[in-house]
Amino acid sequence: MERKEFRDLASPEEAREAIASLSLEGGVERVSLEDARGRVLAARLDAELDVPGFDRASLDGYALRARDTFGADEADPARLEIVGEVHAGAEPDVNLEAGEAVEISTGAVMPPGTDAMVPVERTDTDDSAVLVRTSVAPGDNVMFAGADVAAGERALGPGTRVTPRDIGLLSALGIDEVPVRKRPTVGIVSTGDELVRPGEDLNSDRGEIYDVNSYTIAAGVEDAGGEPVLYPHADDEQDEMERILRQAAKECDLVLSSGSTSASAVDVVYRVIEERGELLLHGVAVKPGKPVLVGRLSSSAYVGLPGYPVSAMMIFRTFVAPAIRQAAGLPAPDAATVEGRMATQERYGEGRLRLMPVGLVEDADGETLVYPVDKGSGATTSLAEADGVVEVAPETDYLEAGESVTATLFSPDVRPPSLLGVGEDDPTLNRLLDRLENPRYLSAGSRPGLRRLREGVPDVAVVAGPTVGNVTVATADEDEADANAVELGRWNREWGLIVRPGNPAEIEGITALVDQDLRFINRTTDSGLRTSLGKAITDLADDRGTDRHDIVEAIDGFDLALRAHESPARKVAAGDADAALGLAETADRLNLEFVPVGEEPVRVLANPDRTAKSSVTELEALLETDAVSQRDQ
Amino acid sequence: MERKEFRDLASPEEAREAIASLSLEGGVERVSLEDARGRVLAARLDAELDVPGFDRASLDGYALRARDTFGADEADPARLEIVGEVHAGAEPDVNLEAGEAVEISTGAVMPPGTDAMVPVERTDTDDSAVLVRTSVAPGDNVMFAGADVAAGERALGPGTRVTPRDIGLLSALGIDEVPVRKRPTVGIVSTGDELVRPGEDLNSDRGEIYDVNSYTIAAGVEDAGGEPVLYPHADDEQDEMERILRQAAKECDLVLSSGSTSASAVDVVYRVIEERGELLLHGVAVKPGKPVLVGRLSSSAYVGLPGYPVSAMMIFRTFVAPAIRQAAGLPAPDAATVEGRMATQERYGEGRLRLMPVGLVEDADGETLVYPVDKGSGATTSLAEADGVVEVAPETDYLEAGESVTATLFSPDVRPPSLLGVGEDDPTLNRLLDRLENPRYLSAGSRPGLRRLREGVPDVAVVAGPTVGNVTVATADEDEADANAVELGRWNREWGLIVRPGNPAEIEGITALVDQDLRFINRTTDSGLRTSLGKAITDLADDRGTDRHDIVEAIDGFDLALRAHESPARKVAAGDADAALGLAETADRLNLEFVPVGEEPVRVLANPDRTAKSSVTELEALLETDAVSQRDQ
Repeated sequence: MERKEFRDLASPEEAREAIASLSLEGGVERVSLEDARGRVLAARLDAELDVPGFDRASLDGYALRARDTFGADEADPARLEIVGEVHAGAEPDVNLEAGEAVEISTGAVMPPGTDAMVPVERTDTDDSAVLVRTSVAPGDNVMFAGADVAAGERALGPGTRVTPRDIGLLSALGIDEVPVRKRPTVGIVSTGDELVRPGEDLNSDRGEIYDVNSYTIAAGVEDAGGEPVLYPHADDEQDEMERILRQAAKECDLVLSSGSTSASAVDVVYRVIEERGELLLHGVAVKPGKPVLVGRLSSSAYVGLPGYPVSAMMIFRTFVAPAIRQAAGLPAPDAATVEGRMATQERYGEGRLRLMPVGLVEDADGETLVYPVDKGSGATTSLAEADGVVEVAPETDYLEAGESVTATLFSPDVRPPSLLGVGEDDPTLNRLLDRLENPRYLSAGSRPGLRRLREGVPDVAVVAGPTVGNVTVATADEDEADANAVELGRWNREWGLIVRPGNPAEIEGITALVDQDLRFINRTTDSGLRTSLGKAITDLADDRGTDRHDIVEAIDGFDLALRAHESPARKVAAGDADAALGLAETADRLNLEFVPVGEEPVRVLANPDRTAKSSVTELEALLETDAVSQRDQ
Repeated sequence: MERKEFRDLASPEEAREAIASLSLEGGVERVSLEDARGRVLAARLDAELDVPGFDRASLDGYALRARDTFGADEADPARLEIVGEVHAGAEPDVNLEAGEAVEISTGAVMPPGTDAMVPVERTDTDDSAVLVRTSVAPGDNVMFAGADVAAGERALGPGTRVTPRDIGLLSALGIDEVPVRKRPTVGIVSTGDELVRPGEDLNSDRGEIYDVNSYTIAAGVEDAGGEPVLYPHADDEQDEMERILRQAAKECDLVLSSGSTSASAVDVVYRVIEERGELLLHGVAVKPGKPVLVGRLSSSAYVGLPGYPVSAMMIFRTFVAPAIRQAAGLPAPDAATVEGRMATQERYGEGRLRLMPVGLVEDADGETLVYPVDKGSGATTSLAEADGVVEVAPETDYLEAGESVTATLFSPDVRPPSLLGVGEDDPTLNRLLDRLENPRYLSAGSRPGLRRLREGVPDVAVVAGPTVGNVTVATADEDEADANAVELGRWNREWGLIVRPGNPAEIEGITALVDQDLRFINRTTDSGLRTSLGKAITDLADDRGTDRHDIVEAIDGFDLALRAHESPARKVAAGDADAALGLAETADRLNLEFVPVGEEPVRVLANPDRTAKSSVTELEALLETDAVSQRDQ
């Protein structure tokens, strides 16, 4: 296996310049007024007519000669003969003489001979005459031709992003089609033998994963004003990759390759661009950024993105989206950055610009706290947690807790969650969360929940498992966090063993795991369920007068622990195990059978600094109502 | 003509409640992942699988047993036999024993028997063996199954507005279709005999105008997350109106009628809703708001909007858009309001909530100034100038200059103009403006430009016409504004008479207007051209030794003055006049002939408080370069 080594990393500025040097502009197209919203005008539009095109009555009432009303008031109205009426959309058929008036509706043409109008509210009628109880000046209540927009006026300039207000102006001018900048077309080529499109079947044994980057980047391209085109998935074979890249280059203004984290797939793309196109730079001195490629292929621009989804999004947002936006003629969105304070200290010091993925959470005062999401160099971090990117300068050794930073959001629509929770998986909790607006919950397990709470980042931790006194059994550090936290509420849940439908092995409890020849699947020690199981085993050892260790040894699969909530039960469903640690609800969901073993409390603990935060008080209120009792629905 | 009188106006709160009581929800639909961006999830989505679905190598390197590396370092590497290789997307075909290693690529499945991996950078190869120069712990550089997302985890909650990040999460889970809230469908029925669709021919003699509200409101509906449906234009005949309203009610969640300012069209709609549906309220105690109707028709909600475009937009934004957004499940957009200071004092005191249309401009420090746009009660004000609405409470008598106010923008995309200018129309100026980003220019004429500059609102005024000393000839007030302003630059332009092609009347100058039997069209006194003409006439009177008044009397049409820049020339083109006051460029544009009479300076004057504003310095720089000399292109 040969691998390309990237040397001479380009600076971030060089990368920006290289991407800016590529021409992404898509030219000009004409769109109908209905499709113009959000588009960017390619040319100035001048008014070709007056709006209104005629002198127009501003109210319902009477058109007349102003001088005929001079001196009129409530006590001494002017009496004018009504000689006709004019409706909106009709041509006046009268020519007014002195002493006459014409009934007129709002928006109608002022008839010849009239120079003002009086609203109906200031008049009375008397047979065929109108009594005008006020005097008006010439021009009163008349909108003159061209008063809104005059023919020849500059209406909208080039570069205007068309809003509903501008659509109003265009329609007033009778313009039903406008020249706009074409959206840059962006071809997305996903690479890597291991990628499968969502909706298709996945073979995990072969290491297949769903393609994340194609769809994420496509949505990001739309956000930036471009038009994404997804190309069929290419495997790592050079001829096929080249064929697809060339097709995309022919049809698009920019080609992005993305998807694979494997060096061989990256190598193939690299060779195609180097041999068939022009490679401007490979590798940028940012973290992450080593695998970034910038170049040209045929008449198209080309950028290769990293394979890890969070890295790909960060590189896309930082280097590519601004270029697409520029080509589309769109300004940077206002809501795209957020000012916040670091929630924790973060050490760095690698001497290159770091694009640090961050999550956001608000404190009780509504101030935004920013916490780093990706701790390790190569770790993929859950997409669910990252809201945006903080750029950390190469010379920065660490960011202090409380230090001000600017986070660039992954998209302007991203909002900090109303509530940030970390802890145990629980179906009742999930239903509670559904009743809050925009919460974020990280199912990291009870003990990580307590640890994160101790660091002060989340609003709440949810912990399950046996309690001693009022505190859940955990390590010393976690105990401290538990003791400092404020318990918002708790409920009990039944835990046990999930077995195959009909319980063919006739499992009645954990003794079966010890005494029968059964394959068991456990949860990791982060889970409260595991702590409850541990306690049950200790109790069993005490009952039997044996050592706890002997009991554990006798359980086939006790060390086969899965982090994921439903994964043990899924192994049972797949026939890979006879019994799994889990909850009744999980058994129901997966059409398996449940053997109850015990009950454990699930406790919702609040960060003591956030008890006044509105989402925390809302959660507390939900916990006090009957929400929790719905757990058996 | 019968007119409905609206009595018992509802309070704004009652109007909001009435609209909130209408059900606008469109139900649930399933959309593909590609179409999910910006949509709102109708249900919680839980993970149905682990991501990744297998233990995965995080880097390129060697998979091995951690214990085989214990104690290894640069000086004393561990030597392990390479027994195979695993690529991403392939199933491992080896089962590792102690002392062995497997070459592995990023993203590949960790083979059975391995529990850690070492990146290639920390190894050397030696024949069929790898030398590992570091020790690793179990789990190092491995991403365990479910580490990103675990099966059974709550992935996205109901009400989530799908961003690119969420699309990433959904695709990681293999989800290619999601249940989302249907966009509420909003039927738009435009009313009024006088309305014509953009793109069609307009007959101004009949008082026809282009339909503005249908398109503006449709764009506003899209902004709010609804799906607009434009219905064919209805005239004011009750049967036809009823047929169209009923069709719209059958097909849509909400029907909006809008368009006409005429009472008769409003009456017809009113009768249809009252007789065939249910009228909840008519008239709201806001200004404007009298013509607002709220009710139901068949199973659809119904709201009738005012006819004037700015009024319709304000009522739509204030009362209707929030209800559509609510039904669509969208939060209020962040960028939808702007804090600013009143640029001028504004008196009020009508005792009902006023929705005051405002324009925005930034001062030299980047602070937003807010100025009212609609001064009179019924006046339609140019759509080009209004950026949003300030709600003025009923008990407020006046807003002081400098007072803080919150403006709700007509759409979140609306931005304050970079430069606000008022004054003379000029083609050279238009080209200069094209080189600035997002300027706003109100072609109100030279004298209104000076008056607005004196009030302190615009950044620049552009004045044309003869000068005395260095100052343009104007009134005393305007002179004061001129004297206080900073001249950024000036150029000269040729003015004269625009005549028919070939100049059939052989007009050589203004003497022809006096001595020949010609129909002339003048500009209004706001225009600098008119001042130049006035000076030329005075000079002619002096030459001839007659009174200026006699010269004016002899010109047929001297008093027939049009405000609009090109409108006089258009009358010549239409055969309604023989000569018009104008510029050479206008004659060119309209394929007419130009008879030069004189030159006048066009001066760009800056507000003395804004000379440091970036757009003002940018304009000044443009004026100093060759930009102005391009006027004859």
